[in-house]
Amino acid sequence: MTTHVRTRVAIIGAGPAGLLLSHLLAADGIESVVIDQRSREEIETTIRAGILEQGTVDLLVDSGASDRVLTVGNRHDGIELRFEGEGHRIDFPSLVGRAVWLYPQHEVLKDLVAARIAGGQDLRLGVTAERVEDATTDHPRVIATGPDGEELVIEADFVVGADGSRSVARAAVTGSSTGGYFREYPFAWFGILCEAPPSSEELIYSRSDEGFALISQRSATVQRMYFQCDVDDNTERYSEAQLWDELQKRVPGTELKQGTIFQRDILRFRSFVAHKVLEGRVALIGDAAHTVPPTGAKGMNLAIADVVVLTAALRALLLEGDDRLVQAFPETALQRIWKAQHFSWWMTSMLHVAPGASEFDRLRQIGELRSVVESEAGKTYLAEAYTGWPLAGRS
Amino acid sequence: MTTHVRTRVAIIGAGPAGLLLSHLLAADGIESVVIDQRSREEIETTIRAGILEQGTVDLLVDSGASDRVLTVGNRHDGIELRFEGEGHRIDFPSLVGRAVWLYPQHEVLKDLVAARIAGGQDLRLGVTAERVEDATTDHPRVIATGPDGEELVIEADFVVGADGSRSVARAAVTGSSTGGYFREYPFAWFGILCEAPPSSEELIYSRSDEGFALISQRSATVQRMYFQCDVDDNTERYSEAQLWDELQKRVPGTELKQGTIFQRDILRFRSFVAHKVLEGRVALIGDAAHTVPPTGAKGMNLAIADVVVLTAALRALLLEGDDRLVQAFPETALQRIWKAQHFSWWMTSMLHVAPGASEFDRLRQIGELRSVVESEAGKTYLAEAYTGWPLAGRS
Repeated sequence: MTTHVRTRVAIIGAGPAGLLLSHLLAADGIESVVIDQRSREEIETTIRAGILEQGTVDLLVDSGASDRVLTVGNRHDGIELRFEGEGHRIDFPSLVGRAVWLYPQHEVLKDLVAARIAGGQDLRLGVTAERVEDATTDHPRVIATGPDGEELVIEADFVVGADGSRSVARAAVTGSSTGGYFREYPFAWFGILCEAPPSSEELIYSRSDEGFALISQRSATVQRMYFQCDVDDNTERYSEAQLWDELQKRVPGTELKQGTIFQRDILRFRSFVAHKVLEGRVALIGDAAHTVPPTGAKGMNLAIADVVVLTAALRALLLEGDDRLVQAFPETALQRIWKAQHFSWWMTSMLHVAPGASEFDRLRQIGELRSVVESEAGKTYLAEAYTGWPLAGRS
Repeated sequence: MTTHVRTRVAIIGAGPAGLLLSHLLAADGIESVVIDQRSREEIETTIRAGILEQGTVDLLVDSGASDRVLTVGNRHDGIELRFEGEGHRIDFPSLVGRAVWLYPQHEVLKDLVAARIAGGQDLRLGVTAERVEDATTDHPRVIATGPDGEELVIEADFVVGADGSRSVARAAVTGSSTGGYFREYPFAWFGILCEAPPSSEELIYSRSDEGFALISQRSATVQRMYFQCDVDDNTERYSEAQLWDELQKRVPGTELKQGTIFQRDILRFRSFVAHKVLEGRVALIGDAAHTVPPTGAKGMNLAIADVVVLTAALRALLLEGDDRLVQAFPETALQRIWKAQHFSWWMTSMLHVAPGASEFDRLRQIGELRSVVESEAGKTYLAEAYTGWPLAGRS
């Protein structure tokens, strides 16, 4: 049995990008259907890091998608770059007049799901997209399978693939499930969650001869920390004491507050940009279009930036019949995407010690870090990117 | 037959670093002997590029070493970064209140040689340094061979190796003739000199898919241009027409003014920093201590910065018996050296297309260039380094 649904915009993926897009479209009276193979509980407990750029926070608040970000989230006015045993603070407000907010992605998702349900969104969970068809016609379609195996066909004026790094929609845009530009990194992150108070008020990005470490937070009582490890490390390789040793020796000069480690994971990361992000009336946004290494905290913010560009384009197309912004979507979005790719690569390569790095490379790296922190312009250049370039059409 | 000479500072090498050092020491009444294996004519016709930082120019003028730099040299208020067929000007005065000067190294050398001879400098040319002895005593010595094969022994309170990348003094400091940190680059520069008017008022640094090009000048009628080539290219590989083709396709959007090409050369370049730049009473400065790829125009300027630091240290040691600044010389000099190494590497890697670079790398590179030119902070960060960080002890 096949169910047919007709809508204006079919959105695959109820992550931050897909849900915010449906939210912004609804504000303009543009109806959409959002599908996701996960359940609400799965969506709301997908634990991901969450550093929100100022522009992302402003958009969530201004659009009515979240006010909790301001009350539950924590504003961070800076980060610390650490190297050679010394910390150097990058003070965002004095450099760029902006800040970032620590507000984990699952909190953003709780807000967005609640807002969409309150807004009467046609949100279908447990529905798995199988493929996108007729991309180059005026009526692209999503073929999906419902929770009980039934077929669902969504015919729309436009289809958006917001379905993450293993995007099903990507094949309809790029011609293959993987088609894109890649960069692999010869290291990974060993992440822990522990029950402890914060070791630092702000995030610490530390370069040491032993490798990179990021001292991050989850809440007043739970901390998230990472250290550079081999790509083939396994989570059981270290005892709890050894994990603290590994972390502590990467942040000399800062005493880490220890506590029970209750989660361990290894994050392998890579850079990816799809060869194409638009084909006819199908667009890719968020992780479906690009993934970045986490060092620059750009992942979710870049997805939100895609949404801003695409919302304006769909408004022009669907309310005014003007497809010029849709045609311009790839170039507009890709300019920011490649800047963010560069920033993420830069933060990664400046702070990690690549296996086989020569002594020259290591000393040049310290010369680079010193160049940045000794220069107001260098710190500003970094802070501009970290706190986020202005979003299209917003001041 | 051996000639013995006694002086306060023995300086090996009559390049910009050695000659300026003797000039500044003389102003403080500190006697020195300068030796070089080359003749005056060879020294004054060693053709090297010459972009002088503002601080270098100020020092040459203030110390009375050169006034021609202001009359014969050309002040450049900016450079152009070109990519994707568009030029983006980096305007130095508005960004950092400084500029650079185009004044080739052989002109600097003519001024310095004339000033030293007028100052009664003991300048011995055609004298080849063989080795430096007794570095860790109060009386280090230079053993040299004169023009007719006679031995010359210079006993001094301090010995300075300003004898270039094939330094003889280096072995006395690092323990070997090569001891240092290296980085090789998988490309070289094909350079031409041609009889033509300038194609551009300012230097053009161009990144294209075919590789890097630098459109530079020598004078109103002679131009110097470079394009990225293979390390094993040879100068006769191209016809004159092919050379113009190679250059022109690397600077799309700018029409090069052609003229007779009367010199061709291939510049292989690498990054190098000596493991040590001080041992007892022997110091290395300039190319003896470090070489940089030419992309950042840092070579001679970095040598001059070494001289400034070492002059203050020798003044304290030899006039006041205080060796603390000499002890601090390595750390003080190396902080700038590694920043300059980073800047030179950065300009090189941002503008060249490495053999085997992936499409991701190429697009990230364009994302980086766009990040820089779209940001006042990014342009300022680049301009600060290009025009030169403040020199120690000078404003």
